[in-house]
Amino acid sequence: MTRQIHFGLFMLGTGNHYAGWRLPGAFDTFTTLEVARAMAEAAERAKFDLLFLGDGYVASPDTHPSWQSRAEPLTQLGAIAAMTTRVGLGATASTTYSDPFTVARAFASLDHLSSGRAAWNIVTTGREASGAHFGKTHPDHDKRYEIADEFHEVVCGLWDCWDDDAVVADRATGQYVDWSKVRTLDHEGTYFSCKGPLNIARSPQGHPIILQAGGSDVGQRFAAKSADIVFTVIGDYEDARERYLAMRARLVEADRNPDEVCIMPGVMPVVGRTDGDALDRLNELQAFMEDGRGLYMLSDRLGQDLSAYSMDDPVPDLPLADASHGFARALLSRAKRENLRIRDLYNITVAARGHYVLCGSAQTIADEFEKWFTGDAADGFNVMPTHFPGGFDAFVDEVVPILQQRGLYRSDYSGTTLRDHLGIARPAMPPR
Amino acid sequence: MTRQIHFGLFMLGTGNHYAGWRLPGAFDTFTTLEVARAMAEAAERAKFDLLFLGDGYVASPDTHPSWQSRAEPLTQLGAIAAMTTRVGLGATASTTYSDPFTVARAFASLDHLSSGRAAWNIVTTGREASGAHFGKTHPDHDKRYEIADEFHEVVCGLWDCWDDDAVVADRATGQYVDWSKVRTLDHEGTYFSCKGPLNIARSPQGHPIILQAGGSDVGQRFAAKSADIVFTVIGDYEDARERYLAMRARLVEADRNPDEVCIMPGVMPVVGRTDGDALDRLNELQAFMEDGRGLYMLSDRLGQDLSAYSMDDPVPDLPLADASHGFARALLSRAKRENLRIRDLYNITVAARGHYVLCGSAQTIADEFEKWFTGDAADGFNVMPTHFPGGFDAFVDEVVPILQQRGLYRSDYSGTTLRDHLGIARPAMPPR
Repeated sequence: MTRQIHFGLFMLGTGNHYAGWRLPGAFDTFTTLEVARAMAEAAERAKFDLLFLGDGYVASPDTHPSWQSRAEPLTQLGAIAAMTTRVGLGATASTTYSDPFTVARAFASLDHLSSGRAAWNIVTTGREASGAHFGKTHPDHDKRYEIADEFHEVVCGLWDCWDDDAVVADRATGQYVDWSKVRTLDHEGTYFSCKGPLNIARSPQGHPIILQAGGSDVGQRFAAKSADIVFTVIGDYEDARERYLAMRARLVEADRNPDEVCIMPGVMPVVGRTDGDALDRLNELQAFMEDGRGLYMLSDRLGQDLSAYSMDDPVPDLPLADASHGFARALLSRAKRENLRIRDLYNITVAARGHYVLCGSAQTIADEFEKWFTGDAADGFNVMPTHFPGGFDAFVDEVVPILQQRGLYRSDYSGTTLRDHLGIARPAMPPR
Repeated sequence: MTRQIHFGLFMLGTGNHYAGWRLPGAFDTFTTLEVARAMAEAAERAKFDLLFLGDGYVASPDTHPSWQSRAEPLTQLGAIAAMTTRVGLGATASTTYSDPFTVARAFASLDHLSSGRAAWNIVTTGREASGAHFGKTHPDHDKRYEIADEFHEVVCGLWDCWDDDAVVADRATGQYVDWSKVRTLDHEGTYFSCKGPLNIARSPQGHPIILQAGGSDVGQRFAAKSADIVFTVIGDYEDARERYLAMRARLVEADRNPDEVCIMPGVMPVVGRTDGDALDRLNELQAFMEDGRGLYMLSDRLGQDLSAYSMDDPVPDLPLADASHGFARALLSRAKRENLRIRDLYNITVAARGHYVLCGSAQTIADEFEKWFTGDAADGFNVMPTHFPGGFDAFVDEVVPILQQRGLYRSDYSGTTLRDHLGIARPAMPPR
């Protein structure tokens, strides 16, 4: 099969740009079905591989508007499963604030209900304030990844408790399950004890697809070991290429076939009639943002307190902090390369939350995607529209057809499951 | 408003009768959207108040087929929210194996996504084997209710962290949330510590509707304190009446208006062309069941080991056990009243899992419902069809119209939220 671009949609009701919702006609909420329906239907119309919902626990003024009042993602994805028939359904679930049995059954359930379209984004939850909602102390970065490692192992074990043919449902004999084909897990580890079996049959994809976005060294090692799709934060093409090749090297080191893993940088496309028009559109959004919250928001993204600086200071030489390695690395290395002031870094961050902004005509954007895709910088892109529905519709209606005409992107789905879309084989049952 | 019957649908893909799925044309799975869609659309066609999904963690040969491989209910309800527009959406979530922040946000999310149709069935989880999936020791009965009590308090507190008008979304000023209208909970209790606020705005119903089915004394006290809908297990009309009046007395004791709580016995209707035809249909289902698993299944339902007995022994005088007070009470008192053998009790249990079986023509069933509803035995019924879609369609198409003609049941929805259907006021914000 010819290699083709894969697309994910980063769903945020108020738009991926902090101020996207302020544009006339833009959605200004993330908690209604109408908003989810419009986004999901557009993603499926554009034959996207998957759509994606992040998650977190902390509502505070310094977070993105869609995170201030947000729906629990599995419930929301359940609804989207009923509105769509092909597009993959990815959601974040935390290995720090949930438990393996709950996560394993939630994603297996979604995989059953959606006939094989579920994907789990493994996060360890960066925000320290999360712990207080659960009566827990937030573990440090490396410990969170140790926990995640065991958590992931238990979840995969639970997904394999049932043989694929364990449900018999024989009307004549009355046998519903062949219990000789179901077994306990009996996991006793450092952080988790879980007997099993899961109380749902092995799911259509065997294992739902695993997403991972870890930016730190330990996070990338974890991604290399576990992920089917790696979301990356990149600063520009050169940075993307460096990260892409480094991740593929890590995959080889981890004894995996890098062609069976899809590396997708996050990109915010701003589509205009011309390159200049696109820049005007971005500037219209940027003008909504004020300096007032800049240091606060940037401090949060970098995991560093910047309150002692002014917006016009050069970006200081900061160490990488615990909370947000991926973003901090991409932003700080770019600041150094380009001699940025704090204000410049703020402008970049506020536009796409630290992700790459690709601003231009549909032609320009398609050219860039082609360059990245054929030039060892990406297998696909996690698309982060500035606002919905307009910002995404422009991408779907103007950029996608160009890539289809060039044969770089599918014109229709050829399969039904997310694994089909990605060309990643269904895992066999482990040997008994 | 004239008092009218309320109907809930107990959804089980393979039917509420253990062998329902064995009938020709019956659904034989509970993990696909097609099955959920057929059930949900029929419930909405019949203008039901709500549909309901139970939950549990243990897959084993002695459980109902729909519980052997089952979907996680919130994900499933999310899907059903997208398929329907009016019917209420109830699901079980455990106070023993989840946590208040997770449960509060899941049901608030569902309430937002469904525009005010969510209901939480509070269970403490009876099955001791559940704990081993979570690395926990299963707490004893009374301790589980102590935990549930605090859990419920925290969840309600989290639902009230946001004032109803805290989300501003003012495009002109850029203010998304008025943070002076959002506050922390700062709960520090015996079992839970939770800072809050919840990361989702106060939901359309203020609080999702609370369902409760506790059968023990402590369980009924908890229901009287917390529930908007009380599910009961009853043996016959006299038993239902006694339970109904006792629950209303408890509500008065708990300083609540009993007219604002809906008491719904579980009933399995078996609809035939005539009473005799209905009995034939039930017998056809009963004939599928074999003695082999009888003692095992009955032991589970009664929370007592009956393996030392034979099927033809009279039902012994057993104490009420920890796990399943409601069922044990209803079954054992009926056994005593009617001098039943173990086989008789098994036949009753296997038919409707211990619930009441109402077998007859549509006319007979409508007459019984009218008698119970007007005779201080019920405010409505939790309908448990033997199988889907046929067993439920018969009820919807034959029994419901008779009750509508008699003015005992709505011909259409008059409101949009579950609270509207039930006639239960939306809770005001607590005073600050």
